[in-house]
Amino acid sequence: MELVYKGKTKDVYKLDGGNVLLKFKDDVTGEDGVFDPGANTVGLTIEGAGQAGLRMTKFFFEKLTEKGIPTHYVDADIDAVTMTVRSATVFGKGLEVICRYRAVGSFLRRYGAYCEEGQPLDAFVEVTIKDDDRLDPPINKDALAQLGILTDEEFGTLEALTKQISGVVKEELAAKGLELYDIKLEFGRDSETGSIMLIDEISGGNMRVYKDGVYSAPMDLEKIVVA
Amino acid sequence: MELVYKGKTKDVYKLDGGNVLLKFKDDVTGEDGVFDPGANTVGLTIEGAGQAGLRMTKFFFEKLTEKGIPTHYVDADIDAVTMTVRSATVFGKGLEVICRYRAVGSFLRRYGAYCEEGQPLDAFVEVTIKDDDRLDPPINKDALAQLGILTDEEFGTLEALTKQISGVVKEELAAKGLELYDIKLEFGRDSETGSIMLIDEISGGNMRVYKDGVYSAPMDLEKIVVA
Repeated sequence: MELVYKGKTKDVYKLDGGNVLLKFKDDVTGEDGVFDPGANTVGLTIEGAGQAGLRMTKFFFEKLTEKGIPTHYVDADIDAVTMTVRSATVFGKGLEVICRYRAVGSFLRRYGAYCEEGQPLDAFVEVTIKDDDRLDPPINKDALAQLGILTDEEFGTLEALTKQISGVVKEELAAKGLELYDIKLEFGRDSETGSIMLIDEISGGNMRVYKDGVYSAPMDLEKIVVA
Repeated sequence: MELVYKGKTKDVYKLDGGNVLLKFKDDVTGEDGVFDPGANTVGLTIEGAGQAGLRMTKFFFEKLTEKGIPTHYVDADIDAVTMTVRSATVFGKGLEVICRYRAVGSFLRRYGAYCEEGQPLDAFVEVTIKDDDRLDPPINKDALAQLGILTDEEFGTLEALTKQISGVVKEELAAKGLELYDIKLEFGRDSETGSIMLIDEISGGNMRVYKDGVYSAPMDLEKIVVA
């Protein structure tokens, strides 16, 4: 198996036949030992974090597949802490699409003059470019088009899929007494068919979730969701 | 005359009858003594900068008025270094609307992974919120709507006016052998009629202009434009 990429929280291997194997690690993003889903650095290592993230990812990707939403998911091996996915190419050097239901994180840091912490937002979608050196700056639809990263049509597809997927996650969490504040998704193009699909993972590390007004850390959350 | 606001580069007085008097100062924005139109601090003081800025502002506002574009301009007194304008209220706590013809400044700092310095852009419009503490973050159309700062319709008006006004400035400069790289505009609502109009100034301090590939500092530029 050929290692093609060592990521912050996952390693990526090429499989015979064209698929890709993702190996989930126990490293989580954050700063100074504190978990932060918006951070660009590995902040801490938590034993079992990879497996918990994979369990939750498997749960949500299977839900999305049931609903006919295109994802890269093929199957998962919880014991081996790996997930097999379809090969994909990302847009530009990689984008993150965020859906926000409450004003927290970088939204609050940027627009705090106009909102209160935790103020409800109406499934606000924004795109950031993956660029650690430039601190993942937000980018709007026109800039994405002018820089040749996304056509207006592709932007529309990503925006619609993001609202749909985030809505599914929000509903599943709500059924367990949890509230989704925001979630970060990644999309790519199927290497074989060219069609747009959800890639990466959907775990506690990609979202902020609260239970009775108290923030729920990834592993606590994953215990509740896949219990 | 009542002083209502002491700005970084202008002081604002209330006139009898409802209009407002802007007194242009010799302070220009920048950092460490170097002029930067995108900076939030007064970087240096240049004798005659206020008067040069006013001359250029008068020139462009009169051009825009001739073309039927709504602005707050009433008249200017070059000797007194003052401009009389209609009273306006800003959107939220103030917005800046930028039109970019080439990738420089904060656009390049954010999206340098996808563009070369000076790469042509097609009248790219973006909005930033005036918030020194948060470094004037960019904000997109949806966030402006969700935070109650601009309706989608108002955003459309600002975007169209920005392209129109920037086009007029670009053309005037081109006629003098100068190339407009980017320009920063401000809009407000006429306190009396409620209609949207261009406010503030149009001077060397609001734009980046190049002559034969070399950056033209505000006062050099103003000499060429209003010679």
